[in-house]
Amino acid sequence: MELSISESEYKKRIEKVRKVLKRRGLDALYLTNPTSIFYLTGYSFIPTERPAALVIPLDGRITFMGPLLEKDHVPLKTRIIEKVETYLDYPGEKHPIEHFAEFLKEMGLAKKRIGIDNKAGATGMWGYKGPPITQKLPEAKFVDMADLVPKMRLIKSPAEIALIKESAKWANLAVSLLQEYATEGSWDVEVALAASLETTSIMKKTLGVDFEPLKNIFPVSAGFRGQIGEMSAIPHAIGTRHRIKSGDVLIAEAAVEIGGYSCELERTMIVGMPSAKQKRYFQFMVEAQEAAIQAMREGVECSEVDKASMDVFKKAGLTHMVRHHTGHGLGLEGHEPPWLDIGNREKLMAGMVVSCEPGIYEVGFAGFRHSDTVLITKDGCELITYYPKNLEQLTIT
Amino acid sequence: MELSISESEYKKRIEKVRKVLKRRGLDALYLTNPTSIFYLTGYSFIPTERPAALVIPLDGRITFMGPLLEKDHVPLKTRIIEKVETYLDYPGEKHPIEHFAEFLKEMGLAKKRIGIDNKAGATGMWGYKGPPITQKLPEAKFVDMADLVPKMRLIKSPAEIALIKESAKWANLAVSLLQEYATEGSWDVEVALAASLETTSIMKKTLGVDFEPLKNIFPVSAGFRGQIGEMSAIPHAIGTRHRIKSGDVLIAEAAVEIGGYSCELERTMIVGMPSAKQKRYFQFMVEAQEAAIQAMREGVECSEVDKASMDVFKKAGLTHMVRHHTGHGLGLEGHEPPWLDIGNREKLMAGMVVSCEPGIYEVGFAGFRHSDTVLITKDGCELITYYPKNLEQLTIT
Repeated sequence: MELSISESEYKKRIEKVRKVLKRRGLDALYLTNPTSIFYLTGYSFIPTERPAALVIPLDGRITFMGPLLEKDHVPLKTRIIEKVETYLDYPGEKHPIEHFAEFLKEMGLAKKRIGIDNKAGATGMWGYKGPPITQKLPEAKFVDMADLVPKMRLIKSPAEIALIKESAKWANLAVSLLQEYATEGSWDVEVALAASLETTSIMKKTLGVDFEPLKNIFPVSAGFRGQIGEMSAIPHAIGTRHRIKSGDVLIAEAAVEIGGYSCELERTMIVGMPSAKQKRYFQFMVEAQEAAIQAMREGVECSEVDKASMDVFKKAGLTHMVRHHTGHGLGLEGHEPPWLDIGNREKLMAGMVVSCEPGIYEVGFAGFRHSDTVLITKDGCELITYYPKNLEQLTIT
Repeated sequence: MELSISESEYKKRIEKVRKVLKRRGLDALYLTNPTSIFYLTGYSFIPTERPAALVIPLDGRITFMGPLLEKDHVPLKTRIIEKVETYLDYPGEKHPIEHFAEFLKEMGLAKKRIGIDNKAGATGMWGYKGPPITQKLPEAKFVDMADLVPKMRLIKSPAEIALIKESAKWANLAVSLLQEYATEGSWDVEVALAASLETTSIMKKTLGVDFEPLKNIFPVSAGFRGQIGEMSAIPHAIGTRHRIKSGDVLIAEAAVEIGGYSCELERTMIVGMPSAKQKRYFQFMVEAQEAAIQAMREGVECSEVDKASMDVFKKAGLTHMVRHHTGHGLGLEGHEPPWLDIGNREKLMAGMVVSCEPGIYEVGFAGFRHSDTVLITKDGCELITYYPKNLEQLTIT
């Protein structure tokens, strides 16, 4: 089992970028998006107020420009980046963007056509201030290329799919441990950390010395995120002060990073014997998810998938309980295109990987949502995640 | 012990915003920055591709505009927000920014002067695309007010300082557990999760039913972030595949959220008897930190503090081992202004809270950095974090 994307695949991605640059008459690509930089090089860094960028010239060395504290890090993690240019720190005696302009001049790009994903030249977090890079290189022509890498990421390669499948194995273990540890009286954060620790330990033992997360500090992110009892009605809850009690609906979820990639797996669980109302909502949620999965295949509009699950809720008279669309793409980021949304007319393509997670929510009562990771194929789709979905197996007694 | 900022303090912050709006002749403030929104309302949400904004009219109801999935969440978490306007989801049949323009029209702001922190009108994560809000309200006059809330955050109130001090207690416990659990053969991620779990459990028991993280899913973030052995020479390492072994330098760190606020505490530890070289670097690092602390007081330029620590390294002939400046502000975000940087001529003011963390790093060998959280006072400064700093107590045997 490979635990990361191979160097040759990263090189192919770079080649693809250069083909686009050539076709568009561009001399270089300037990227600030950390996910785009990771996708093309395998290099991940902690984004801060300190500007950082990757420059891919049509001809010439692939260069990372960033703070001095990344200098020794880059060569340890990637051979795709061929040169590292740094400034001491932000804000510095000379602003980092001034340094970047000089580095670009030294690369012979001062009067060239440069594709860019962000005309500020920096992501601009945490109180960062600075002039746009476009202003510091007034003779260069900057062309918006924010879409280039995100578009490349839409269709997953066999290697990417293999990493997401490996992630699913461990997410399955993490969710099973959440279910095991979620006893009455326990607090969701404690259950989450215990399941994450246990999953991490078994992963390290099984995957061996080579295993380490590349993008996240912690490879396993498992828990309930506050979705306990009444708070399960809040799809984007953050936490809850309440301990788990009998009668609670829980939404358990896990993501596990393998080589930068992750699946998404979520399960609705019930503590104690489910009530008739809980059973009813649970059942419609499962049906809605099944309807969406049945609708997925290459060539189908994303909106059709959303419509398929929403139709189930509509027929059941539960539309007022819907709080979000059916799903989203995933892989390198928590959410990414394509959006399984009624307003999205884009067509699904084989190799896309999406979450399927229609849900219903009643304030003051509970929420019901499973999420699975689904690979789109020519003829239909393939479920990458595989934890049980039926209420019997998700009842905690 | 209060575990969060009081409603009356949030109201005072809003009043202060409205005073500035009035003085600047503005009719409303439009904010997209999640930290600014939290600072003014106590409301935290998970930022995604879905646009969200807070609108504070000079007169009229404070309104959160966002996806439907936040609708039921807002009133559970804050009474500062008086109205919630939502769209179903992104991208939607009608773009969220179109909805936002309509909400602003309904608020009577279509032709008014609106302060804004981001002219796109949305933070724009994860593949988001959309027109700027400024384009959708062409008769409104938008004025850049990106600095307003960050400036308000610079000087911490007594309540904010109390929360950071409470955070320091728990960070102290977390670092002591990291030191206890960091035995030969253990993997940094496992030690990190075990210490985080133990600290979290004790916190929940001690702080009681009211305790929950407001901003983060996990209240405790403790670990080494890969800074083990040779990887400790990489200040922004993310992970390491190597298990802890005798002779390793470790950099342990902890942050703990209390009511949205956190301190920063980091300690360099050595496994087994320190070598002469390790002792030497460790000692200069401690001296550099002490020099910076001695330099801190109201009225001193930030650059002077950076210079004080760097002078220690310079005299020792270790300038080539420096990889970053001395520190940064903190409180709500990992890093925030003021920057303790040679290029920053701003003056320290009483009530600012900063990290003090000069470090030295040798590739292939190790890194040495303590970080403490420091409160600036009229006469000097006060250390908020308080774990032992001397090598004897940081030697793991």
